[in-house]
This record gives sequence, C-alpha cells and structure tokens, in this order.
Amino acid sequence: MSKLDFGNFSRSRIEAFSDGVFAIIVTLLVLEIKLPHLHEITNEEFLHSLIEILPKILVWMNSFLVVCVVWMNHHRVLDSLKHMDAGIFWLNNILLMFSSLIPFPTAIIGEYPTLTYAVSFYGVCLFFMGVAFTVIRWYAAKNPHLLKEDVDVNIYKKGASHTLIFGPSLYLLGAALSFVNIWAAFAVYFFILVYFITPRSARTH
Amino acid sequence: MSKLDFGNFSRSRIEAFSDGVFAIIVTLLVLEIKLPHLHEITNEEFLHSLIEILPKILVWMNSFLVVCVVWMNHHRVLDSLKHMDAGIFWLNNILLMFSSLIPFPTAIIGEYPTLTYAVSFYGVCLFFMGVAFTVIRWYAAKNPHLLKEDVDVNIYKKGASHTLIFGPSLYLLGAALSFVNIWAAFAVYFFILVYFITPRSARTH
Amino acid sequence: MSKLDFGNFSRSRIEAFSDGVFAIIVTLLVLEIKLPHLHEITNEEFLHSLIEILPKILVWMNSFLVVCVVWMNHHRVLDSLKHMDAGIFWLNNILLMFSSLIPFPTAIIGEYPTLTYAVSFYGVCLFFMGVAFTVIRWYAAKNPHLLKEDVDVNIYKKGASHTLIFGPSLYLLGAALSFVNIWAAFAVYFFILVYFITPRSARTH
Amino acid sequence: MSKLDFGNFSRSRIEAFSDGVFAIIVTLLVLEIKLPHLHEITNEEFLHSLIEILPKILVWMNSFLVVCVVWMNHHRVLDSLKHMDAGIFWLNNILLMFSSLIPFPTAIIGEYPTLTYAVSFYGVCLFFMGVAFTVIRWYAAKNPHLLKEDVDVNIYKKGASHTLIFGPSLYLLGAALSFVNIWAAFAVYFFILVYFITPRSARTH
Repeated sequence: MSKLDFGNFSRSRIEAFSDGVFAIIVTLLVLEIKLPHLHEITNEEFLHSLIEILPKILVWMNSFLVVCVVWMNHHRVLDSLKHMDAGIFWLNNILLMFSSLIPFPTAIIGEYPTLTYAVSFYGVCLFFMGVAFTVIRWYAAKNPHLLKEDVDVNIYKKGASHTLIFGPSLYLLGAALSFVNIWAAFAVYFFILVYFITPRSARTH
Repeated sequence: MSKLDFGNFSRSRIEAFSDGVFAIIVTLLVLEIKLPHLHEITNEEFLHSLIEILPKILVWMNSFLVVCVVWMNHHRVLDSLKHMDAGIFWLNNILLMFSSLIPFPTAIIGEYPTLTYAVSFYGVCLFFMGVAFTVIRWYAAKNPHLLKEDVDVNIYKKGASHTLIFGPSLYLLGAALSFVNIWAAFAVYFFILVYFITPRSARTH
Repeated sequence: MSKLDFGNFSRSRIEAFSDGVFAIIVTLLVLEIKLPHLHEITNEEFLHSLIEILPKILVWMNSFLVVCVVWMNHHRVLDSLKHMDAGIFWLNNILLMFSSLIPFPTAIIGEYPTLTYAVSFYGVCLFFMGVAFTVIRWYAAKNPHLLKEDVDVNIYKKGASHTLIFGPSLYLLGAALSFVNIWAAFAVYFFILVYFITPRSARTH
Repeated sequence: MSKLDFGNFSRSRIEAFSDGVFAIIVTLLVLEIKLPHLHEITNEEFLHSLIEILPKILVWMNSFLVVCVVWMNHHRVLDSLKHMDAGIFWLNNILLMFSSLIPFPTAIIGEYPTLTYAVSFYGVCLFFMGVAFTVIRWYAAKNPHLLKEDVDVNIYKKGASHTLIFGPSLYLLGAALSFVNIWAAFAVYFFILVYFITPRSARTH
C-alpha cells in the first residue's frame, strides 16, 4: 500500500515537470560544444578546431538521443500508472536528478575521448540513471494497485527485468570494457542507443 | 479582501510558469559542476580532479532535492487555493526569485565547502526562500476567501506555522551553526531535506 | 483584416511557448551572478567578494521582477484576443526576442553599475521590449476583429497609450537621465517596476 | 503501416516536449552575447566593445527568428498528423537535435563574421536542420494513414517539395556562396528568413 497520500497531486504536473526537465537537459547539452579560440583567424585554423571538437559533437548526438530514449521510456512508465504515491514521486525525482547529470559526463568524454577513466565515467553515470529507472519499474511492480487495470503485472515485471538487462547492465559492461579497450566501450554505448531506438525493443518493453 | 482583480488570469498559466521555473532551476544546477582542467591527461589526474569536485556533486544532489521539495510544497499550496489574487501572484514571483537564486549559493558552497561564511550563506539563501514560502501560506490564511471550501483554515494556519519552524527556522539555525562547526550546519541542512522527503512530513503539512 | 490564416494554429501552443520563454529568461538571469575567484579562501575575502557583486544581485532582482511584469502583461494581452493572426504571432516573437535579451543588459549594468553608458543601455534595451509590447496592443486595437466580444475597443486603445507612457517612455527617460545622474536613472527604473507591481496599475491597464 | 505501436503515447506530450526544446533554444541564444572585458571602464571603451559585438547581436536576431519559423512550421506539420508512430517520433527528435545545435554555429558566425568557413558552417548547420524537417514531411506523405482526413496528400507532397527548395536547398546555396562572397551568403540567409516570415509562404506551405 502506498504510505503517503498525495491527495489531489496532479499527474499532469508531475508529467509537465518531468517533460520540462528532459527538454532542458537535451537542449543544455549543446552548451558544452564550444569552438576553441582560434589563434589565427584563418579557414585552416577554423577547420582544424572543428575537427578537434568532433568527439564532442559525436557524444553530444549520443547523449541527446539517449535522453530522448529516457524521455520515451519515462512516458511509458508513467502511462502505465493509475495513481502516483510518494514513492513514485521521489523515485521519479531521483531519475530526473541522474538524468540531469548527463551533460557533465558528456562534457568529460567529449573533452577526453581517449582517456580510459573518462570513457568509463560516462557509462557509470548512465548506469546510475538506468538503475533509477529500473527501481521505478520494480516499485510499481511491487505496488500493483498503482498500475492501471489493463496492465498485466507479470508482463510488467518481465519488462522491468528486461530494462535492467538492456539498460544499466549494458552501461556497466561498457564502463568495465573501457579498461580493456575504449572502442569496445563506445561500441556498447552505441549499441544500447540503437537497441532502444529500434522498434523491436519498443514493442517488447 | 483581495485588493486586485486578476479577472480571468488563469491558474493553469501561473502553475505552468512556476513549474517551468522549477524545472529550469533544477536542471541548471548541473552547470556548476565542471571538471577542473587536467594538466596531464592521465587516469590518476582525472580521478584526482573528480575527487576534488566531490563536494560540488554532493551539494548539487542536496540542492536538486531541495528544489523538488519546494516544487512539491508549491503544488500543495497552490492546490489549496480557489482563487489567485495579486498578492498571491507577486508572493509567488518572490518565491520563484529566491528559488532561482539557489544555483548561486550551491556553486559557492561547492567551491568553498570548508569556508564558514560559504556554508552559512547557503543556509541564509534557503532561509529567504523558506520565508517567501511561509509568507504565501500566511497570506492565504489571512485571506480565507482564497482557500477552497474543503480546506480547514485552522489546520491550514497550523500548517503554516509548522512550515515556518521546519523550513526557514532550521535553515537559519544551520546558517548560525556553521560559525560553530560547519559539519553541524551540514547535518541540519541534510536533516531538513530528509524531514521534508519522508512521508510523515508530507502527511501533516 | 488579418492578412494570414493560421488555420488551426492553437492559442495554447503560443501561450505555452511564450510561458516557456519567460520562465527560462527569468531563471537564466541568475547565471550572471558569479562570485569572483577568491585569492585567499578566508571569510573576509568571501564577504568582500559578496559585497563587490551586490550591484549584480540588486539588478538581478529588478530584472527578475520586470520579466514577471512582462509575463503578467503578456498574459493580459493574449487573454483579450479571440483569434491570433500572423501579425500577432510575429509581433509576439519580436517581444519574446527583446525579452530574451534582458539577461545581456542585466549582466552589463551589474558589472559596470557606475558607468553612464551601461546604465543607459539597460534602459534602452527595456525600452525596445516595451515598444514591442505597445506595438502588439496597437496592432490588436487596429484589428478589433481579433479582440474578444467583451473587450471595449476604446478602453483597449486607452490602455495601449497608457502602456506606452508608463512603459517604454519612462525607460527612455531613465536611459536619458543616466547622462545627467545615474541615480536618477536607477530611481526611474525602480519606479517603473513598482508602478506595474502595485494593484492600481493592474486595475487600469 | 506504422511499424511500431506507441500505444497511448500522447501527442500532447510530444508537442509539449518539442515546444519546451524550441523555447529553450531560442532563449539560450542570448548566452552567446557577452560584452568583452573592458580594460578601462570608460564610456568610449564600452561603446567600442558594444560595436565590436554588433555582428553577434545581428546573428542572434536572425537565429532567434529562424527558430521561431522552425517552431511555426513544426506546429503545422504535427497539426496535419492524426497519429504519431515511432518514425515520426524519432525523426522529430532528430529535428530537435539539429535545431538545438543552432546556438553553436550562431556563436561561431558571431565570433568570426568575416571568415568564409564560419559563414558557410552556419548555412550547413541550418541545411541539416532543414533536411530533418523535409524528411518528416516526406515520411508523413509516404504514410498517408498518419495524416488527418482533411489533408490532401497531393497538396501535402507538393508542400514537402516546396519546403525542400526554400529551406535546406537555399541554406546549402548560401553555404556555397560564402566561398565566393560572404555578403552574398548573408543575403541568402536573410532572404530565407524573410521568405518564411512573410504571409505568402505561410499560406502555401
């Protein structure tokens, strides 16, 4: 049973707040992309600077789309709920907190794309975000009265385990792999994104 | 009596504006977390930098969750109102103003976590935010025609006093304690957060 | 007559977009308040830095509340409209553009609070914002089919002139006065804010 | 047929998320306008600095209004849709991604307004944004079951081709022209803006 009565705490305001946070995260990411100061203002120097920050642009794209995936899955989770209790509310805030951290590891991996710890740190941060997500699903599965009538609890629980495997676990794998080979880590990070964007995953979760 | 008629000033736009401001505050907080420039790009140097900014990460978490608490309580206050007059509107703006200041003391305490005045300043800023909150509740309690029919004015007034004690008063205590011992101040700041997150507080206020 | 048919362009999306922009402007303002780097980490040095940026804090408060006034008046104008045509849409965008500029002159006057041109520039920017506002009102008054049935066009026109006098004209006066005495300019800027916050102005406009 | 079932994925949340992103992009643009540090705090020095950043102010205005155009067209496209499938969802995210990049080339062209590559880069970035837009329209035209009943598919397809010509193609032309003459490029960029703001374009697309 829900320990806390939120009274008429409106679902629409939690959704609006969350949507706002995701929209801001996704847009703030670009602030990390800055052209280094040009010593001489020439086309060659400009092109050189642009190539230098190419890693920043690539990780920006990855993080942008990751936040879109989080937003999509967030919608799906909230949409399966009939009521929101204090547990959901605070777990949601913790998910938003780890999501709002994403610009930080994105800036770091963009700045030091060949540094083992920087590549690993990116995966660790996304792992925490993924764990926060999985905990929301677990909490909802353990409090089935929060779910809408047409949600099958067993399928929902399976979905929660599925999310755990393909979300945080793979990010942790990527973070670990970076100690062996950073390109393997990048491959895993990219695979997770592709996995969640492709329709199949969307159907099963 | 309300001095000003807002006509058809819609409650939903005040809520949307406030929600937007809270969502932006909470997300901007991460911009204060920057890894110091690495002199040598090595894993050791990276780890050292990360540990150096650990205080920033911890105060970021505290401020993030504090703003979530403010947002939650803000919802509760607005939800008890039937009408909004100019007084509520401007007191709300002043609350948003002090809330939007939070990234500033958060950056300061994260940068100088062992400096008495920095630790105290954090509490003072949150004290002002808390006072702004209490004033809204007082104003509503003094103008009971603004309240919804099902709100018991006496309980509402008690709630306002309660908020004063556990919100701004404790932040002021924390700010004062930092002159004795900064860890005592940190303990008080953290206690306030825990107090407002735990279900019990949510039930009584 | 409206030159352009927006079809089912929804009023709620224009309002949501505008509310979002105002919420972001108001919250971004705090980013301009940064404590200068402390050479020695001492309480005295900290206090000295804080006093040094006091002008920034004061202009931040003024600009914050100015944007709240703009938001309030914006609501009132949009609320008087039955339809929105392309003219309203683009005039609204231009108003948002000049409003979103406000953090720039705010940063400047906060950095150089005793420099004539900096004080004047603040008033000039707010003058442009005020003109954009007045033009929307004029446009609506000249296209009365856009107004709601219960809006009296004559009163509306008077309100538009009123806004012109107390908004942009006074900001221009303040900008000019700064060449004589910057304190006179500050007094005018502050008077405009107080004028628009106090209930009387809200009733007549 | 749509490959992916979004279930009850609400159109209003996609719109709200997109509106949020556009509102943030448009407001963040001003952060790139900073007055260079004054060596002497004099009116002459101030005026000199202000003139120095005039190109930044002009490109800020252009980018601000471009994002408003994108937002307007985005509304129009979403408004023609009855359903949203995964294709629309992800193409929309990619459009938001390229739109959120706009502050980056805006900062660059404002910093180096006379550098060929910088002027060209601005057009290239807007070209990508325009392509993302055109692809959404093509996708919808190829999946007519997504369109509302009252939308004429042939007119819709024509509109998509029209958008391609006047949007991305002209930006690419501008980007190319900058190698011949940067003023020609600026003229093309400005023409595109004027074209999309003027009522005629709004009627036909």
